[in-house]
Amino acid sequence: MPATSRRAVITGGTGFLGRKLAERLLVGWPDLERLTLADRAGPPDGWQLDDPRVELVIGDLVDRGFVETVVGDDVDLVFHLASVVSAGAEQDFDLGYAVNLHGTIGLLERCRAITAATGRRPMVVFASSVAAYGSGAGDPVGDATILRPESSYGVQKATGELLINDYHRKGFIDGRGLRLPTVSVRPGQPNLAASGFASGIIREPLDGVDCVCPVSPDTVIAVISPRRVVDGFCRIATIDGDRLGVDRILLLPGLAMAVAEAIEAVERAGRGRELGRVTFDVDPDIQRLVDSWPPAIVSERATALGFAGDDSVAAIVRQHIEDELEPELAVTTTDRTPLRPHAGGRSGPDR
Amino acid sequence: MPATSRRAVITGGTGFLGRKLAERLLVGWPDLERLTLADRAGPPDGWQLDDPRVELVIGDLVDRGFVETVVGDDVDLVFHLASVVSAGAEQDFDLGYAVNLHGTIGLLERCRAITAATGRRPMVVFASSVAAYGSGAGDPVGDATILRPESSYGVQKATGELLINDYHRKGFIDGRGLRLPTVSVRPGQPNLAASGFASGIIREPLDGVDCVCPVSPDTVIAVISPRRVVDGFCRIATIDGDRLGVDRILLLPGLAMAVAEAIEAVERAGRGRELGRVTFDVDPDIQRLVDSWPPAIVSERATALGFAGDDSVAAIVRQHIEDELEPELAVTTTDRTPLRPHAGGRSGPDR
Repeated sequence: MPATSRRAVITGGTGFLGRKLAERLLVGWPDLERLTLADRAGPPDGWQLDDPRVELVIGDLVDRGFVETVVGDDVDLVFHLASVVSAGAEQDFDLGYAVNLHGTIGLLERCRAITAATGRRPMVVFASSVAAYGSGAGDPVGDATILRPESSYGVQKATGELLINDYHRKGFIDGRGLRLPTVSVRPGQPNLAASGFASGIIREPLDGVDCVCPVSPDTVIAVISPRRVVDGFCRIATIDGDRLGVDRILLLPGLAMAVAEAIEAVERAGRGRELGRVTFDVDPDIQRLVDSWPPAIVSERATALGFAGDDSVAAIVRQHIEDELEPELAVTTTDRTPLRPHAGGRSGPDR
Repeated sequence: MPATSRRAVITGGTGFLGRKLAERLLVGWPDLERLTLADRAGPPDGWQLDDPRVELVIGDLVDRGFVETVVGDDVDLVFHLASVVSAGAEQDFDLGYAVNLHGTIGLLERCRAITAATGRRPMVVFASSVAAYGSGAGDPVGDATILRPESSYGVQKATGELLINDYHRKGFIDGRGLRLPTVSVRPGQPNLAASGFASGIIREPLDGVDCVCPVSPDTVIAVISPRRVVDGFCRIATIDGDRLGVDRILLLPGLAMAVAEAIEAVERAGRGRELGRVTFDVDPDIQRLVDSWPPAIVSERATALGFAGDDSVAAIVRQHIEDELEPELAVTTTDRTPLRPHAGGRSGPDR
């Protein structure tokens, strides 16, 4: 976050990554005065933030009036996490473009208007996805791999990256972004993401629930844990922007996880628990979509800038148990390190 | 063009590439029943097509009503050449996005509506540009090089490619496209394109007019001649779509042309003419933009599919003299070979 920033917004703020990022910002960022969580729906039952700095706003990002309400002239920093997920954007073409493309454009235009009105340039941190790669991307994919997505969601994420770079280049925003591997383990209910199995095969058995996996056991998917994603968002918001250069989007490191390997890791970590069973019922559409994503990722730029991925599938399973299933542990595992904003000024488009 | 197609549209149809493509289609495509040239302005004085199949429609592609008028339900084939050029889109950010992004979306939505209404899937051939690459693209650029444009025009072209691929994948259109090197020699008046010098340094001296070049003599730019571009559009419209695969956009071969080399070629070819002089007044903005484009291009996919570039700078200069300065020769040089549409059916998204 910019050194002078005090007021932040998280779109998709009641989603699970939004909530985790909010928790981290509230403990790690002493100067934070207001944190607006904007989303289409409220948080799940049982989650609440008893913090006077938190403001919850429910509405639709496609509505530019809503965007103006959420992103007031005094906002310094927007984490743009909201999107229709991959299978959702595939099922409803118009909805996916409305939210993921035109909603993002509306948000960027709003921030551009703030810059024009106030001379302060808001920072916008965009959540992209490795779904922006295509099946011909090669293995591993890296910083220089062409983005040839084979899903509408991927097209919308790739386009968002291009727009973040262009609005930054023009000096309209301080644009930054992370191209995220599939996040695992995603807690809570399954969503429409085609990558949902990468969490379900770990989460459901540990909850004692049976799980039907829609891809074959030898399917490999590049994953990153929630903690590493939250670390990544905090790091990219606080890093000296000059170190990013003209391409403001960093590819985060992904751990190549085979479905069968995850199932074994759960069985080892879950001894003493009553585990649900994983069975297979391959959905050709999901298998095809997932097979078009890169199983291995080499993130030279992000690694050189200190961004980290996960060490092992076992560690990912352990993190999920600590953070979601044993809340008494979570207090000690939550990272409370103060976030140190980069001290540079905010003038000029490259700061 | 699809084997059954009869009615075609060229957006940007009164621009110089649109006119050359129109001339080629009218002589080479015996089955053509109607050719609509849609543009913001009429053709230049002196150009006319006395052909009852030609329909000229003036209007703004940003206006969806205009798009509906131009692209009627009976249209089989759209060559989408219209765009705000690079320096124009850089000067007027909103206009560039309105025309190059939202205008393209409007056109794709119109074609999608035709598919939904009639079951016939129009072919859309999109003109992209190597401006979609960035300065970090490496040298040479190729089919697998990431698109990290450093101009709004480049962002809009890169986004257009993504949309063409997605609308094709969804079965809404038969999508195809060419990523074009800088076209040289572009006849007529200079336009706002930052690449304008690549034509001006050849065209102006041959017209006996002095020319101020805004980039240094050692600047190298990848170019393609108008004839090769028109050949490319005809070829991609008639090729078996299965041969394109999931990425519907082909990078056309570019010839690396140094400014000093072009000036020498003009001096050799122009003996006996009264040549204008080229002087240099480097514009840092244009130099920076042009330096961000790739000087060398390797087009493996297009070459394997029979697409050709130019042999030499001398040949490009000669072509310009033949086609634009010695019209009595142009009659014999115009390619009148019949265009043979691929005979495959049109069912299914991959045909």
